[in-house]
Amino acid sequence: MNFLEERIMKDGVVKEGNVLKVDSFLNHQMDIHLLNEMGAEFKRRFADKQINKILTIEASGIGIACIAAQHFDVPVVFAKKSQSINLDGDMYVAEVESFTHKCKNHVIVAQKFLSPEDHVLLIDDFLANGCALQGLIQIVQSAGATVEGIGIAVEKGFQSGGRMIRNLGFQLESLAIVDGMDAATGEITFREQPQWDAK
Amino acid sequence: MNFLEERIMKDGVVKEGNVLKVDSFLNHQMDIHLLNEMGAEFKRRFADKQINKILTIEASGIGIACIAAQHFDVPVVFAKKSQSINLDGDMYVAEVESFTHKCKNHVIVAQKFLSPEDHVLLIDDFLANGCALQGLIQIVQSAGATVEGIGIAVEKGFQSGGRMIRNLGFQLESLAIVDGMDAATGEITFREQPQWDAK
Repeated sequence: MNFLEERIMKDGVVKEGNVLKVDSFLNHQMDIHLLNEMGAEFKRRFADKQINKILTIEASGIGIACIAAQHFDVPVVFAKKSQSINLDGDMYVAEVESFTHKCKNHVIVAQKFLSPEDHVLLIDDFLANGCALQGLIQIVQSAGATVEGIGIAVEKGFQSGGRMIRNLGFQLESLAIVDGMDAATGEITFREQPQWDAK
Repeated sequence: MNFLEERIMKDGVVKEGNVLKVDSFLNHQMDIHLLNEMGAEFKRRFADKQINKILTIEASGIGIACIAAQHFDVPVVFAKKSQSINLDGDMYVAEVESFTHKCKNHVIVAQKFLSPEDHVLLIDDFLANGCALQGLIQIVQSAGATVEGIGIAVEKGFQSGGRMIRNLGFQLESLAIVDGMDAATGEITFREQPQWDAK
């Protein structure tokens, strides 16, 4: 097990309905040391990529992205989920459906922050059915920019998002892939990751 | 002028209706080097305070809070703005009215992340009429925890939030206080800050 899988085993909580709560260290309270380890690991996994910008989506991706950005020495852009009166000018907009909130959102990035010269790493905390991520990919491609890779903290491997993204040829690196959870026993099954053996 | 005021002069844009856009470096695209300078400055201004937790509010406070947290070596908790199905258990809830979005939000923090032992630094990107901040203060006090200080990037000094918070006796440190803006000329007037002279 890697450091994130160990932390999930220690502090994660499995709830009915395939909900994995990691709110004590990842997406409500955030352990900055853990985020820093994650940032270093993303840098290791994308060491051969020329990345000049990190793109994430509000809200829980922002902390992970900002700490990771220190390892890449690049700025972070976070996509917004709904129209704001402070967001004027030309915008890229993608409509996505949220698994967690069971509603549709518009994912929005101001056009001035993405251009064809950009080589983008996408970062988010969770990947389940991948709707938010699809919105981010759509936006990067609308800008004529390049998705160099995708870094996820926790992927729900039993949902289709990860497989679909990998089938499209993207380098998707999820630090922990949960292949199964049992709310009755609290058991969590992680997918073995060959990348970690190569360390 | 300090580093943040200089950056606002260089890259901030004044819009009609007393809107100051800092989205190219602070709250849509984020310059991580700038955030790091801000974190160091917050640490300097709150050097005599025993802080064990930073509390912020989604979304644009999160990046600033996470980078600042590295200077304090503490975890970050971010308050959520609406009920989420992943947020179960007992919660502190405060109702606040947003100046920017002209709507009411519930500010929510899970009770397990704030206790009477906590000495909290509140961090946010903007302070105008202070509604979000009032919600955060209410939540910290509901938990029996202590507000050790408040760190803000940009305060709109011509609105009442900052004065009210200081009148209540809180140590409020805004790295840039805008006392006036002119959308026609783009001119921005900053309040002089004695703290900076003491450097």
